[in-house]
Amino acid sequence: MKDQIFMNTKVAILGGGGMATACATLLSESSDIAVSMWVRKPEVAADMQNSRENKRLLPGVSLAESIRVTSDVDEAVADADYLVVAIPTEFLRQALTKLAPHLKNVSPVISVIKGIEQDTFFRPSEIIADVLGPRPVVALGGPSHAEEIARRLPASVVAASGDIQLAKQTQKLFSTDRFRVYTNVDIVGVELAGALKNVIAIAAGICDGGKYGDNAKSAIMTRGLVEMNRFGSAYGAEPSTFSGLAGVGDLITTCMSPFGRNRRLGERLGQGETREEIISSMDAVAEGVNTTRSVYDLAEAKGLDMPITTEIFRVLFEGKSPEAATQTLMTRPQREE
Amino acid sequence: MKDQIFMNTKVAILGGGGMATACATLLSESSDIAVSMWVRKPEVAADMQNSRENKRLLPGVSLAESIRVTSDVDEAVADADYLVVAIPTEFLRQALTKLAPHLKNVSPVISVIKGIEQDTFFRPSEIIADVLGPRPVVALGGPSHAEEIARRLPASVVAASGDIQLAKQTQKLFSTDRFRVYTNVDIVGVELAGALKNVIAIAAGICDGGKYGDNAKSAIMTRGLVEMNRFGSAYGAEPSTFSGLAGVGDLITTCMSPFGRNRRLGERLGQGETREEIISSMDAVAEGVNTTRSVYDLAEAKGLDMPITTEIFRVLFEGKSPEAATQTLMTRPQREE
Repeated sequence: MKDQIFMNTKVAILGGGGMATACATLLSESSDIAVSMWVRKPEVAADMQNSRENKRLLPGVSLAESIRVTSDVDEAVADADYLVVAIPTEFLRQALTKLAPHLKNVSPVISVIKGIEQDTFFRPSEIIADVLGPRPVVALGGPSHAEEIARRLPASVVAASGDIQLAKQTQKLFSTDRFRVYTNVDIVGVELAGALKNVIAIAAGICDGGKYGDNAKSAIMTRGLVEMNRFGSAYGAEPSTFSGLAGVGDLITTCMSPFGRNRRLGERLGQGETREEIISSMDAVAEGVNTTRSVYDLAEAKGLDMPITTEIFRVLFEGKSPEAATQTLMTRPQREE
Repeated sequence: MKDQIFMNTKVAILGGGGMATACATLLSESSDIAVSMWVRKPEVAADMQNSRENKRLLPGVSLAESIRVTSDVDEAVADADYLVVAIPTEFLRQALTKLAPHLKNVSPVISVIKGIEQDTFFRPSEIIADVLGPRPVVALGGPSHAEEIARRLPASVVAASGDIQLAKQTQKLFSTDRFRVYTNVDIVGVELAGALKNVIAIAAGICDGGKYGDNAKSAIMTRGLVEMNRFGSAYGAEPSTFSGLAGVGDLITTCMSPFGRNRRLGERLGQGETREEIISSMDAVAEGVNTTRSVYDLAEAKGLDMPITTEIFRVLFEGKSPEAATQTLMTRPQREE
């Protein structure tokens, strides 16, 4: 699918996590593309560079020889035509602020980050613009477990940018015979969907933990999607994005995968644990907790009807029981779909 | 939620299956409603009437004393204000033809049937109109495993009719504090979605059987929904219906539930069995097989782009391997979402 258009193209990936590594393996399938990975810790970078494996986060996946892993940011980004940013939202601003002096070329940025910044409610592309100044940004979204991608299982994602030419370049850059990329101009919708789904995943997890059944879980996902869409539309997204890969597609994996932190947190709420008990025993933050608070506040500000988000807020922050929240949702006034 | 508006209301349910029984239990929660069930086999009817249980299809769920089960159709339908039809699509025309002389009152019909008639591609409401003549019809759709409903687990569904007053009456009639009913005017979309999802469930099952992963399965469901919507729009449905409970909601349960026949058939295809091998060992028909053929033909007739349906058709009827079908889907020309 790729041809000489990427001859001598260099892509620098910022990040050493599973998704960063999966992106490196995808790009390295084209012998025309030079791939460098910047990994913050020198010992981790050296180990990946020497062993050709990300032992902690993607064990068993070997890195092609053409991938250069380094902790030297200048080396990683020198002459890069594209920057792929794969740093979790909560560390993104701090990391980019340190890196900014080294990122002199105004290369387009491809963000594979999902989530939203606490307090500011900035989307990843907004954080990038805030720290690095204006430059073209495209967001990759959709159902994309890194491990499956790295193991060459089939996946389809969406590349979204107001700059449609950049979206199309990203489509060409990343596409392989196992990784299909669609384009979309609605970066707001793709980024919001990637954050909002985590609220609904908590609700879906409550259905699992409380053994409410398949009917209830499907209904909460469907009506949750209606809320995501309603919120997105009020904040500048296109409704059609929520029917696509970054919307319903990512929602399905997030609500169904047994490993997702947000679904798992909901499951434990449904089993009767409190938010404090669960969070104190989790080794990583379930982003949906903070997202719920932010979305609840922003929905209130615009007077949006978000019944599921409201009930998750009450369960998380006001000690309402999941059973009472379910009862509230089931006995709301009758309405049209 | 219900009040005196249903005082002296009689509802006759045609059918003795799980969904018929679940409807009876829902309606019997209101002491104002008289419920009768017509069950074809006299011995089954007598056993249900005496034991207060549908032992074969809903064991352990007790039927309220107010539910009258009989094989005498005249007794069942006498003075009925509403007819609930819960007969599988493949037997519907034949059954209604026999019953028609007894259904003299032009009572509105509430159809809880999912599927499409082979050869004619008639929707359940069209079969009903064809056999019984014009009368108001409403279709209940959405994620609705009968057993979960009968056990009072929460569920949300949609009642769709061109006659919005009938949809609203049905909403009031069926709603309980565990069963939430939304209204919709798009009966075409609700009925088509209930049939089309079975094609996509075969594709989702192939992902399970071939161990293609969560990314692939979510993507096939999402892009499958796009196809369902495209087909529905060409045949008179409203796009928004496919984003609702009868669309994405029912699609999720159908593709995720381990028990669904269509998903299971796909799973076995993905494991390398042929259609003939699978069908000869299944005790009930997987409706999606015939639906795939019909949808494929009807899409061809209108020149609709239905890549997933096309590949499922080739796997089922032309011996194409699931791997080759996947490869075809993944390497189609790049496009917008």
